[in-house]
Amino acid sequence: MASLNIDTQDKALTRDLLLEAASVLMRERDKLDISLMEIAEKVGVNAALVRYYFGNKLGLMMALLDRDLSPGMEAFKTLVNMDGSPTMRMNHHLSGLIKLYFRYPYLNRLIVSIMQSAPSELAQSVADKFLRPVCEGYDVLLTEGASRGEFKQVDSKLFYFLITGACDQIFSAKYALRYVYGISDIDDDLRQAYVAQARTIILNGLLAPKV
Amino acid sequence: MASLNIDTQDKALTRDLLLEAASVLMRERDKLDISLMEIAEKVGVNAALVRYYFGNKLGLMMALLDRDLSPGMEAFKTLVNMDGSPTMRMNHHLSGLIKLYFRYPYLNRLIVSIMQSAPSELAQSVADKFLRPVCEGYDVLLTEGASRGEFKQVDSKLFYFLITGACDQIFSAKYALRYVYGISDIDDDLRQAYVAQARTIILNGLLAPKV
Repeated sequence: MASLNIDTQDKALTRDLLLEAASVLMRERDKLDISLMEIAEKVGVNAALVRYYFGNKLGLMMALLDRDLSPGMEAFKTLVNMDGSPTMRMNHHLSGLIKLYFRYPYLNRLIVSIMQSAPSELAQSVADKFLRPVCEGYDVLLTEGASRGEFKQVDSKLFYFLITGACDQIFSAKYALRYVYGISDIDDDLRQAYVAQARTIILNGLLAPKV
Repeated sequence: MASLNIDTQDKALTRDLLLEAASVLMRERDKLDISLMEIAEKVGVNAALVRYYFGNKLGLMMALLDRDLSPGMEAFKTLVNMDGSPTMRMNHHLSGLIKLYFRYPYLNRLIVSIMQSAPSELAQSVADKFLRPVCEGYDVLLTEGASRGEFKQVDSKLFYFLITGACDQIFSAKYALRYVYGISDIDDDLRQAYVAQARTIILNGLLAPKV
């Protein structure tokens, strides 16, 4: 039994190491296009082991999405259902979303790539798990905010795109920072400045005019 | 001389047809990953001809970026330098930017892909031609708007990312429309609703509080 336990732990550890290697490579190269061989090499295992754990590249991408996004999804659901003003909760969400993209700058591109390469039934289940709860959470927050007179009336579907695009873009279009501003990395100060500006623009735009 | 003229016209026409074929395929498949062979087949010419006009996939992508973006760049420069309130000009720009992404939904992904695959000198020249003028234009509009008391003081560098991300996302993440809302195409009504919401959120967020 003891050796079986250790085996299981080893397996879980190897799987985690492979996911982290994929994540690190995607961040280092600023692209998703990493081969299973390169991921295996980074961990020092055989590429067959990557196929054993994840099946193929799509399986690995889905496991990585799950690893990166699941904790944030739980936090978001808690935020949507907690007490407190919608303004305060939206403020908190904007900052959390930018922190998430800061940590995993490939995240939006990862979802796009999965959606494009997965068979439609699988794409639907990924959407149901990771997109629908966010869209529905926005609808709850925006409806509550409007009914309390804090927010303007806005369409939650369109809001979803405005927010995720605005919060992600500095991370997915980092080349503009490099080639226009000579900034090669987004450090914590820049991240915080981006949060502040997103709050200034988006949250202020959402707030109902004072009467 | 007459036949030389016709030849030149034919060449320009074939080149245009190849670019349009690439553009149509990228829109139809919602991805950039189209082979030179597929583009040639759509026009009914040999793939060698695609290489003759564009060299390789990167050359074709750069020619397509130039075709899609150059008219908008000129319009943007005119807008930046024209008379009229910064609010009115920013309003006009938001609508134009969303119209541009509506027409060429692959545009942001095309720039990312070029920046990632081009040698850095070439990437720098693309940035100087297509990104720097936009960033600088934002700086002019935002500075003028703040000095006239219309806008809050915001960082034009961060603004660039917020705006381009917000305006692009509904087009580059269309799968969310499909799998969450059952909407398979962005029609003109949806585009106009997106423009209205971007104005509501972003432009109102930018406006200085009334005193």
